[in-house]
Amino acid sequence: MSKKYVYLFGAGKAEGSADMKELLGGKGANLAEMTNLGIPVPPGFTITTEVCTYYYRNDHRYPDGLEEQVDEALARVEEIMGQKFGDPDDPLLVSVRSGARVSMPGMMDTVLNLGLNDETVQGLIRQTGNERFAYDSYRRFVQMYGDVVLGLKPEAKDERDPFEEILDRKKEEKGVELDTELTAEDLKDLVARFKALIKERLGVDFPEDPREQLWGAVGAVFRSWDNPRAIAYRELNNIPDDWGTAVNVQTMVFGNMGEDSGTGVAFTRDPATGENVFYGEFLLNAQGEDVVAGIRTPMPLNILQKQRTGRDLPSLEEVMPEIYRELVQIRDKLERHYRDMQDIEFTIQRRKLWMLQTRVGKRTGFAAIRMAVEMAEEGLITKEEALLRVEPEQLNQLLRPVFDPKALEQARMEGRVVAKGLNAGPGAATGKVVFTAPDAEEWAARGNDVILVRIETSPEDIRGMNAAQGILTARGGMTSHAALVARQMGKVCVVGCGALEIDYKARRMTIDGKHEVKEGDYISLDGTAGDVILGHVPTMPSEVLRVIQGDMRPEDSMVYRLYSRLMEWADEVRVLGIRTNADLPDQAKLAVAFGAEGIGLCRTEHMFFEEDRIDYMREMILAEDEDSRRKALDELLPMQKEDFKGLFRVMHGMPVIIRTLDPPLHEFLPHDDATVEALARKLGKDPQKVKEKRDNLHEFNPMLGFRGCRLGIIYPEITEMQAKAIFEAACEVAGEGIEVIPEVMIPLVGHVNEIRAQKAVVDRVAKEVMDRYGIQLKYMVGTMIELPRAAITADEIAQEAEFFSFGTNDLTQTVMGMSRDDAGKFLPLYIQKDILSDDPFSTLDRDGVGKVIEIGIERGRKTRPDLEVGICGEHGGDPKSIEFCHRVGMDYVSCSPYRVPIARLAAAQAALRFPRD
Amino acid sequence: MSKKYVYLFGAGKAEGSADMKELLGGKGANLAEMTNLGIPVPPGFTITTEVCTYYYRNDHRYPDGLEEQVDEALARVEEIMGQKFGDPDDPLLVSVRSGARVSMPGMMDTVLNLGLNDETVQGLIRQTGNERFAYDSYRRFVQMYGDVVLGLKPEAKDERDPFEEILDRKKEEKGVELDTELTAEDLKDLVARFKALIKERLGVDFPEDPREQLWGAVGAVFRSWDNPRAIAYRELNNIPDDWGTAVNVQTMVFGNMGEDSGTGVAFTRDPATGENVFYGEFLLNAQGEDVVAGIRTPMPLNILQKQRTGRDLPSLEEVMPEIYRELVQIRDKLERHYRDMQDIEFTIQRRKLWMLQTRVGKRTGFAAIRMAVEMAEEGLITKEEALLRVEPEQLNQLLRPVFDPKALEQARMEGRVVAKGLNAGPGAATGKVVFTAPDAEEWAARGNDVILVRIETSPEDIRGMNAAQGILTARGGMTSHAALVARQMGKVCVVGCGALEIDYKARRMTIDGKHEVKEGDYISLDGTAGDVILGHVPTMPSEVLRVIQGDMRPEDSMVYRLYSRLMEWADEVRVLGIRTNADLPDQAKLAVAFGAEGIGLCRTEHMFFEEDRIDYMREMILAEDEDSRRKALDELLPMQKEDFKGLFRVMHGMPVIIRTLDPPLHEFLPHDDATVEALARKLGKDPQKVKEKRDNLHEFNPMLGFRGCRLGIIYPEITEMQAKAIFEAACEVAGEGIEVIPEVMIPLVGHVNEIRAQKAVVDRVAKEVMDRYGIQLKYMVGTMIELPRAAITADEIAQEAEFFSFGTNDLTQTVMGMSRDDAGKFLPLYIQKDILSDDPFSTLDRDGVGKVIEIGIERGRKTRPDLEVGICGEHGGDPKSIEFCHRVGMDYVSCSPYRVPIARLAAAQAALRFPRD
Repeated sequence: MSKKYVYLFGAGKAEGSADMKELLGGKGANLAEMTNLGIPVPPGFTITTEVCTYYYRNDHRYPDGLEEQVDEALARVEEIMGQKFGDPDDPLLVSVRSGARVSMPGMMDTVLNLGLNDETVQGLIRQTGNERFAYDSYRRFVQMYGDVVLGLKPEAKDERDPFEEILDRKKEEKGVELDTELTAEDLKDLVARFKALIKERLGVDFPEDPREQLWGAVGAVFRSWDNPRAIAYRELNNIPDDWGTAVNVQTMVFGNMGEDSGTGVAFTRDPATGENVFYGEFLLNAQGEDVVAGIRTPMPLNILQKQRTGRDLPSLEEVMPEIYRELVQIRDKLERHYRDMQDIEFTIQRRKLWMLQTRVGKRTGFAAIRMAVEMAEEGLITKEEALLRVEPEQLNQLLRPVFDPKALEQARMEGRVVAKGLNAGPGAATGKVVFTAPDAEEWAARGNDVILVRIETSPEDIRGMNAAQGILTARGGMTSHAALVARQMGKVCVVGCGALEIDYKARRMTIDGKHEVKEGDYISLDGTAGDVILGHVPTMPSEVLRVIQGDMRPEDSMVYRLYSRLMEWADEVRVLGIRTNADLPDQAKLAVAFGAEGIGLCRTEHMFFEEDRIDYMREMILAEDEDSRRKALDELLPMQKEDFKGLFRVMHGMPVIIRTLDPPLHEFLPHDDATVEALARKLGKDPQKVKEKRDNLHEFNPMLGFRGCRLGIIYPEITEMQAKAIFEAACEVAGEGIEVIPEVMIPLVGHVNEIRAQKAVVDRVAKEVMDRYGIQLKYMVGTMIELPRAAITADEIAQEAEFFSFGTNDLTQTVMGMSRDDAGKFLPLYIQKDILSDDPFSTLDRDGVGKVIEIGIERGRKTRPDLEVGICGEHGGDPKSIEFCHRVGMDYVSCSPYRVPIARLAAAQAALRFPRD
Repeated sequence: MSKKYVYLFGAGKAEGSADMKELLGGKGANLAEMTNLGIPVPPGFTITTEVCTYYYRNDHRYPDGLEEQVDEALARVEEIMGQKFGDPDDPLLVSVRSGARVSMPGMMDTVLNLGLNDETVQGLIRQTGNERFAYDSYRRFVQMYGDVVLGLKPEAKDERDPFEEILDRKKEEKGVELDTELTAEDLKDLVARFKALIKERLGVDFPEDPREQLWGAVGAVFRSWDNPRAIAYRELNNIPDDWGTAVNVQTMVFGNMGEDSGTGVAFTRDPATGENVFYGEFLLNAQGEDVVAGIRTPMPLNILQKQRTGRDLPSLEEVMPEIYRELVQIRDKLERHYRDMQDIEFTIQRRKLWMLQTRVGKRTGFAAIRMAVEMAEEGLITKEEALLRVEPEQLNQLLRPVFDPKALEQARMEGRVVAKGLNAGPGAATGKVVFTAPDAEEWAARGNDVILVRIETSPEDIRGMNAAQGILTARGGMTSHAALVARQMGKVCVVGCGALEIDYKARRMTIDGKHEVKEGDYISLDGTAGDVILGHVPTMPSEVLRVIQGDMRPEDSMVYRLYSRLMEWADEVRVLGIRTNADLPDQAKLAVAFGAEGIGLCRTEHMFFEEDRIDYMREMILAEDEDSRRKALDELLPMQKEDFKGLFRVMHGMPVIIRTLDPPLHEFLPHDDATVEALARKLGKDPQKVKEKRDNLHEFNPMLGFRGCRLGIIYPEITEMQAKAIFEAACEVAGEGIEVIPEVMIPLVGHVNEIRAQKAVVDRVAKEVMDRYGIQLKYMVGTMIELPRAAITADEIAQEAEFFSFGTNDLTQTVMGMSRDDAGKFLPLYIQKDILSDDPFSTLDRDGVGKVIEIGIERGRKTRPDLEVGICGEHGGDPKSIEFCHRVGMDYVSCSPYRVPIARLAAAQAALRFPRD
């Protein structure tokens, strides 16, 4: 006996089931499942995906036994329907549709009304008593078959579809405008003309034999698996070529048999809001494609929907109440059975309801969250399932400021959405354009909302960025300076918007060569979509943020309720700790409100860019000797100390990792000569000498230059000052009765001797300070692992380091030899050409960087089994990367405050998917 | 019984031997060995290094039993000498000296003439009949003991040595100038005054008891192991603190007992030339320190030496022929015994020869080679030992051009050696100064020898560098562009000479603010020492080079004979293949003459800097679309092809690895606006657009930017052109009957998809070309492993790559996160502070980069067991790194032509030290 290639469904029994998607495709599996559930499904059968694979591996031939199995299945369908395929009196008509494992909407071919010919059309007339309907069905079938199966396409690029042309000519001859105005006779004539066209163009007769029609259609569907459109779609969605498609042959039902027929699509819950209400649209006397095509306005499903949308059209609930009740029952059954919101298609043929499709429905992020939480609360799914139902990134929809939706729509209609960049900082922002960071500060201080527009940003711009509502840059990628800082600050940000031409001197820019925007003009940024919008579009903060910040009562916000419920469940299952990257008390406070359990990275250098400090910093850098360097450092000490005290107070009882000075010193100096000269005058130095010093600090590859612990090793007095600030702050805050857990992190260590030397300085200062205050604090000294050498020699480094924090931004740069700031020239093309599957600066490169991390953890824990291991690179907020961090056994991830909730959820999902022993 | 702490030597028998250096120190072990050889050594004993260690671990106390063992040994010495320690009639006098495992010259303390006091000095007078000698010895002893043992030092910084002050006062009182003019009475008075000084300053009496003197001196020597001078020396030379020193107590012999006495140092062969002649210097009636002090002119050892140096002084061979004969016998015995050239010290006391020291003698590189070869030829050592006796770097002394020694000496005397930089390219060069690369070419074309002086060099300067005799830069380290290119070209090069202030506009520089050098002035560079010399110093090429290049007959050159003999032996034992990094046929030819067995790296981009090509290259870079890019590439194709043909012809039957385009494109564009404008006019392009393109190509971190295979992946037409040039050249040269083995190397691969994509291009072109020529060639496509990700995923990459070549320059940069061009700001201090032991760009960082290499080889060979693995970074020419390459199982190393002989020797040594299974 040959293998089973054909699976029957019909009359309440099916050979397949929902879990056979690989073999039957999604559509086929669900048709079988519905049939078994006792839901009315037009009977039919599925030819498996294995036949497709066989077909391609064997020169477009079918396996032995297939024909017999099809015959047998067809006979069973005939039996169920009490009709015969090709019967001139009461013909069985079928549809032939593709059905891959995953939905590939519209990519492959379909043939409807199959089984019609000059004889059986008479039977259809008899069945329906509707000659026009029968000939319209026949005309559509010949046209579809000619196109899809026989391949009659336009011959030249500019030729119109030849069938459509004949149709138009006919309407012209008859002097009518609409298809519906053609009579049965006209349609009959069209059938003849279509057949003549086929004969003329292809030299073959249109097949009258329904069996020949069937096999022709089956072959066409299999072949459509390999049409260029489908291939492109598969490439884009990473669907393997050898999966193949199944073919579903199913009894035709008609929603266009009159006013007692109809067709519709529905969602078991509202896919936009997630609310537990039945939601859908339908048309009377129509075929499925008519609903999608949008030529006629569809009618609402029920009275509630009608009321809410304020539409005038009658609903299904009113027009056919008994059918609606049956549909509601099916909806309940399907949701209970599938335990998720379903997207269903149905047809009513002469007051008989038929289900044609069910599948898990797509939804907005907000809806996903609401459904997950509510289904769990309803007991339909478990809390664990609820957690897995939400894409962590979808939480953004609860967190970001939002445009007033109506105003946005209006802007769109007015053509004010004028450019697109990379959506680096989600949310909505609106304000007056300024082109320099100092302007941003100044304008903001005067009470303006500003959008800072730069070709690109640098650390000098940080205060200006902080003062702005949003940041827009012409250059830079998703991990450019602007993007990185914006995400940490929670700023709306659009980067790499190539359409901008910025003229700093004239203080204006042109967008796309057309729109001129001057300083002070309003623009708006949609950081979620990456859109740049001319003019002012009003925004509002998210409800979650308003509740967290005390501007709204929790009980007034359904959004907050959903958020906090989900977070509560996530915290119950996650294993990873969640910390935040925060430099300032305000950031830390927000992060804690979002659920952070510590600070994973405080970048001390960000503190140095404050107006009252940058000059001391510069004085320190320009110092000629250790004495004058120490003098400048002494001025910085009390400021750093105050910062740290603020952080320690906010982080009460939670660990705070503070990284010593990291960036190359030239980042602190002004670049242009004029500013340098002003600086020199201010500091009472020779401008020429200051310029020389600046030039001398220039680096060819600053990323690999004089930075990180190299600074502290050459100038130990810097580390000394920072350690002093940390421990004096810690002692003083501890003196206030607040628990303080400082962890000092040495950056860019590559050799154990580096951490050894820096740790000696920190330990010495810590002891001095604690003795002076008479307070004993527990603290740790650890290192960032951000160089391959650090990971490779982690066993040595762990002799000194008490914790590791993987700095995956720089680690990615060094492991891959790829500069984040320069990769824009080739990385997008690399992803397009499938050299790399993801941007490694957004999602951790597991095979390369990930292996280096695994080596680092393994070797580090070999030396020090209790080594605390975390991550503080941008990847710490990326769900896929968080899963990796969980799997390799890290203790925590650290991310920017606004990503803390996302990280909590991602960590929970990782724990559910990959339970640790 | 307590442990043995004291080892006796004397009267032809010693308890120790030469292989007991750890216990007895170098001096003590060799004194024992000589004694056992029957060589006359003043009897004595050695207190072991273990006593030193015990002394430091036990609060400056001695182990039990030591005192008894010393007493016993002293008694044996007294017995041998027939004298008694402290005997007023015939006192035994001893020296007390330090003696560590390795020589620490002058770092620790010594006491001579110990055993003298007011009574025993009478015995010494009686022994010698020389009252003045006896009191002089006594005076010296008290002074030395007061200083070394009792610690009587100047009290204030500006105080003179108080003993010397007393001595001066005495001379003043007596109205004499020289010590020798003082009488026995004067010296006796000095002894009294010295003792009084000790009493006054220290409140203690000078110890009259010889036993007390002895223990005082022993303690002082042990303590001197920890004086600041010794500690610093140990740090500098990586000598462990816990090794400790031994103490040698030895019977005094006096070379200053009159004209029948004397003292000298000698080498068993000439340490400067390596010639097998006895060479040394001596003084009559003198102590050892007098020879070293250089106050008196020493006399030659023998007549030959006297003749050669043309000195007037009589030789030992003439003055004491029987002593000289005895010394010659000892010389022969020592060399036969130690099988190496010895550095010996001797004293003649009243016509009796005593040997005081023997140790392996230091020598010049040339001497090392000559001795090694000749000793092996004499049968004194094996060929293997000979190979291990030469530091590979010492071969440079045979290979580099040399200054005429007399002219150099004159320049030095005239104060024309005015600055020092880093000795980046060894050898000697002299020529007229030019300040731009085009000037260098132009002046050279007119027949001038030129020295190219730049602040730093860039790839644009290559032709100018090639035209110059030598290159001098103000900035850059040992692996700067200038240094790297110079070594490959074999150019003399001094880099990073901070004393230069170069004024390009005025075409002049000042050195050290004093010496002005204008364009056209002569300067000379000593690339071996790093010296910059004003004016013309004549040079000559090395004999090896003259022979290799056919300008000298091999049989006329002893230097060449030594070189070729050593190379022949090296090739017999080495396992590693030796290839060369060469871009041009001439370089390749030279490398083959030096013994290269293939090309390990041909950098195709160097060919693009030629005058007739750079513009096509620039046109290609500035092209707006693929078509115009292809047009420019088509122009480059025949030129590249000719280059490759030249290489293939030279490399007849040897593999040639050609690397596809590697550097970032901006390196090919001019930087200053004026040149850009000229270029634009030349190419008929809009200058503004060209400038924009140049700015657009700017990178923040070019090392990690758009370069390597990234270029070929984004512009596959570049790789296509290069592959076409390679395979057309290969087919055409193969058509000439020459065996061609092309290996195409893809640079900067980090992901298997990269090599897969580029290999597909190369394979396709190769097939097309070979089909067209009707020739089948064996070839390989492989990759550089220069990114950590490549090493980590080597198993995947080896699925595509047929060979690996470790690009350790870039691999070091990425593994360590250290830019070669920027590391100058911290690397020297890192080495000084012992954070790193070596410059990782010169000597491979085994613990970090090396581990990554090991991972790469292991994983690569797991996938492809016959994977060909080599190295083509600068480390391929560094002996320590070559040893590593051998140990990790590489197939070959590749280095610049001038380092091929060094690599051959280093590979041989590696094979001898670490035999492969």
